[in-house]
Amino acid sequence: MTERIRESFSLAELAERFGGIVIGDGATRIRQVAPLETAGPEELSFLASRKYQKLLASTRARAVVLAEEARDATALPRIVCRNPYAYYARVAALLNPEAVPEPGVHPQAAVHAGAHVAASASVGAGAVIEEGAQIGEGAVIGANCFVGRGAHIGGRTRLHANATVYHDCVIGQRGIIHSGAVIGADGFGMAMDEGRWLKIPQIGRVVIGDDVEVGANTAIDRGALDDTVIEEGVKLDNQIQIGHNCRIGAHTAVAGCVGIAGSTRIGSHCQLGGSAMISGHLTIADHVVISGGTLVAKSIARAGTYTAVFPMSPHDEWLRNASLIRHLHEMMDRIRKLENEIRKVEEK
Amino acid sequence: MTERIRESFSLAELAERFGGIVIGDGATRIRQVAPLETAGPEELSFLASRKYQKLLASTRARAVVLAEEARDATALPRIVCRNPYAYYARVAALLNPEAVPEPGVHPQAAVHAGAHVAASASVGAGAVIEEGAQIGEGAVIGANCFVGRGAHIGGRTRLHANATVYHDCVIGQRGIIHSGAVIGADGFGMAMDEGRWLKIPQIGRVVIGDDVEVGANTAIDRGALDDTVIEEGVKLDNQIQIGHNCRIGAHTAVAGCVGIAGSTRIGSHCQLGGSAMISGHLTIADHVVISGGTLVAKSIARAGTYTAVFPMSPHDEWLRNASLIRHLHEMMDRIRKLENEIRKVEEK
Amino acid sequence: MTERIRESFSLAELAERFGGIVIGDGATRIRQVAPLETAGPEELSFLASRKYQKLLASTRARAVVLAEEARDATALPRIVCRNPYAYYARVAALLNPEAVPEPGVHPQAAVHAGAHVAASASVGAGAVIEEGAQIGEGAVIGANCFVGRGAHIGGRTRLHANATVYHDCVIGQRGIIHSGAVIGADGFGMAMDEGRWLKIPQIGRVVIGDDVEVGANTAIDRGALDDTVIEEGVKLDNQIQIGHNCRIGAHTAVAGCVGIAGSTRIGSHCQLGGSAMISGHLTIADHVVISGGTLVAKSIARAGTYTAVFPMSPHDEWLRNASLIRHLHEMMDRIRKLENEIRKVEEK
Repeated sequence: MTERIRESFSLAELAERFGGIVIGDGATRIRQVAPLETAGPEELSFLASRKYQKLLASTRARAVVLAEEARDATALPRIVCRNPYAYYARVAALLNPEAVPEPGVHPQAAVHAGAHVAASASVGAGAVIEEGAQIGEGAVIGANCFVGRGAHIGGRTRLHANATVYHDCVIGQRGIIHSGAVIGADGFGMAMDEGRWLKIPQIGRVVIGDDVEVGANTAIDRGALDDTVIEEGVKLDNQIQIGHNCRIGAHTAVAGCVGIAGSTRIGSHCQLGGSAMISGHLTIADHVVISGGTLVAKSIARAGTYTAVFPMSPHDEWLRNASLIRHLHEMMDRIRKLENEIRKVEEK
Repeated sequence: MTERIRESFSLAELAERFGGIVIGDGATRIRQVAPLETAGPEELSFLASRKYQKLLASTRARAVVLAEEARDATALPRIVCRNPYAYYARVAALLNPEAVPEPGVHPQAAVHAGAHVAASASVGAGAVIEEGAQIGEGAVIGANCFVGRGAHIGGRTRLHANATVYHDCVIGQRGIIHSGAVIGADGFGMAMDEGRWLKIPQIGRVVIGDDVEVGANTAIDRGALDDTVIEEGVKLDNQIQIGHNCRIGAHTAVAGCVGIAGSTRIGSHCQLGGSAMISGHLTIADHVVISGGTLVAKSIARAGTYTAVFPMSPHDEWLRNASLIRHLHEMMDRIRKLENEIRKVEEK
Repeated sequence: MTERIRESFSLAELAERFGGIVIGDGATRIRQVAPLETAGPEELSFLASRKYQKLLASTRARAVVLAEEARDATALPRIVCRNPYAYYARVAALLNPEAVPEPGVHPQAAVHAGAHVAASASVGAGAVIEEGAQIGEGAVIGANCFVGRGAHIGGRTRLHANATVYHDCVIGQRGIIHSGAVIGADGFGMAMDEGRWLKIPQIGRVVIGDDVEVGANTAIDRGALDDTVIEEGVKLDNQIQIGHNCRIGAHTAVAGCVGIAGSTRIGSHCQLGGSAMISGHLTIADHVVISGGTLVAKSIARAGTYTAVFPMSPHDEWLRNASLIRHLHEMMDRIRKLENEIRKVEEK
């Protein structure tokens, strides 16, 4: 773990900032957060689920954050609050502020005279910003990033090194775009004409709301005619592909390696598990959870958890059972035949 | 959608360029293309499939492109042609010409003295072009791209920002390489030697034909000894992985997130659905369609559509059925036993 | 294939370097390696498996490397050794030494005054190296790479163009990091708080051992609190996603498009097939082989090969059988009912 000298905070100071009730010595000072198993003497830990409650007995943490229901489960100094995991996230952010580069444009960046970079923004070495692009207050454009003609990067949004934003795309405020992400490449649109593919110009944009995080090497294609839209608060992990004209509803979280084909609309507050694949032109309702590895080929109209995964076995066992998948229909026919025969026997 | 002032064209002018028969007022002028549902008063729409024919009644499009069979399905000014979707692609391209940068090498690019860049080519800020590389007439090398030693980029081919072409690779004419694409990294070749992997040098190239599009963050590995070959007219979406020594046949289209393992040959005019996975050392015939999410572990000798996807259900239902997959063999045994028993009963 | 003038070696010289017994004329000179089918008159080929033995009769190779058991299978000059494929890898590396750029920092690179670059290292055009970063002896930092604040790149490690290493990450010696790889982006960690996701700072690092290869566009996330660890000798193909706090054991090989969710520990000497997906918080034993396309949702305690793949069929056949998957439970019920009925019939 990265070691730097960190400010310390007392439990009382934390409660003043983030709420919660301090039980035990409010002057107890902590410098870092850590899991119950590995926390050391200057560290704050947290209990987010009853199933880890037994770890409280042996933890070396100096203090703990926990929920009302567990308030008496330890004698350690503690903060009791409604949502210990969220509380922990806030304390972790306080103790580990992100290093933000100084405002200003690096002399080895290439900013077009017709671009507008806010005075409080930072543009790293090798970054290229084209004509008409706008970089908001406090935004950070990392080294070797590309921001195309007419694109807008919202205030306090950060593009990590080697991220790419094509022309005319829009990213809201407080966004985080990780390295290798590509926002606004052409959608996969073409017409077949006498055995050859004819490219259809992709003239829509990508429009990303506020507070969106886009993981490393994730790609979001621009729309064909209308825009591809990522609503506020969406969190995208790494290696995701989002096709043209998709709309991802607010506060939906998408895990790594997911592919979403074109023109699909995902509701808000959904969760898509890793490597899930969503076909094109579908509509997925709000609050839908898709299990990892599941291919979704039909629209989903109601909230719930949906799954499509072949269960894993040792290879030999798999071979034995998988070979029967191709005979399921025949198995069903044999069952029907048996039912008919037994009926005849019984009728006799 | 991006708004710029666009030239307008009359239906008669379009028919002169692209063929088709104008019905109604040939002087009708249009400025943009749009789907039937959202088209506005200066826009041309199209009907590519009978299933959308009912939208003709309510569309606000000024004019429509449709096939002979639907020529009388609307009273709007219209162009009747053989392939409305391809016609639409051509009109869209006419109305939305790509912005192409001015020829010349940006002062912040790094072009080796021993590289050759055509006078009509454009090299963006931060692009790096190594010794012996050749950049063809009218080619566009985007910001922060890398073109390695001895690589060839064909005439009018465009590399978008942050694309990478390793040494000695060859890209044909009129290609489009999107941001984050990596052409020519080492194939995954190694020999096991006493518990350690020994790297096998990858000394082949990637050779890409004319009119190929490579999506964002797609990777095509160089060959081990021979070349990896992408034939003319192939269209690759985003996040695709193509292993060393593959050959992808002409005019094949590959959707996002597909992985193709080494030494596999895909025929021409194939279509691979999103997230399909093709094992190594296979041969896939021409005109094969692979459904999204399908793992192909055996060669395919004849044209057709092939599928291997576990059907999705609500999670509880999935659990109930999936658990039985591991008992298919036992189910089959019980069916066989029942058949024997009923035979005995009948024989009595 | 790339053609350059190459040094030639006699079989005797090869045996002196790499061991093995020469049979036939030890003065036979070779310039390149090639497969048995395509080898030409100055080329060395190899026989790594009995199943290719028949190719020996027709090969035009000048000489062959083979195992003791096949020593008399050809009259060609040959080297007999324990592991012909590893021998071939070593000869291939000797004949095809990688082109390594001259030491020194390119004038268009941006190296922070507080970074340390070894005198024998090479830093390409457009590369950006931040404060406190250390670049080891003989390391090569490719064009437009990014090495963040405090990161360490080990001796003789090579970052190909457009690779990204975030702050504080550590890469061992003799590593190869391909283009588009992203080492150390934030893990996907967040807490739900009243309908909004709260980011959890990711303050661990990525720590990569010696002799690790990371493929093009592969992403390895930094740890949340502790580090993400890739042990020595691990080989990662392209387009892989490794979540925060994973540990990949020594000499494990991971094929393309694999996703490994957070906090999972993979043993040493494992092999994960292409597009396999491993859920989070699992433990996979040493020497486990996962078939391509398999989703692993449970820990695996013992070595062996594990598979979970729906078998492919022509689409119509698939439709017929897949529709029955959702009725497996009902099929089982009908079998049970039949068993009861037949028992009753027999009891009569």
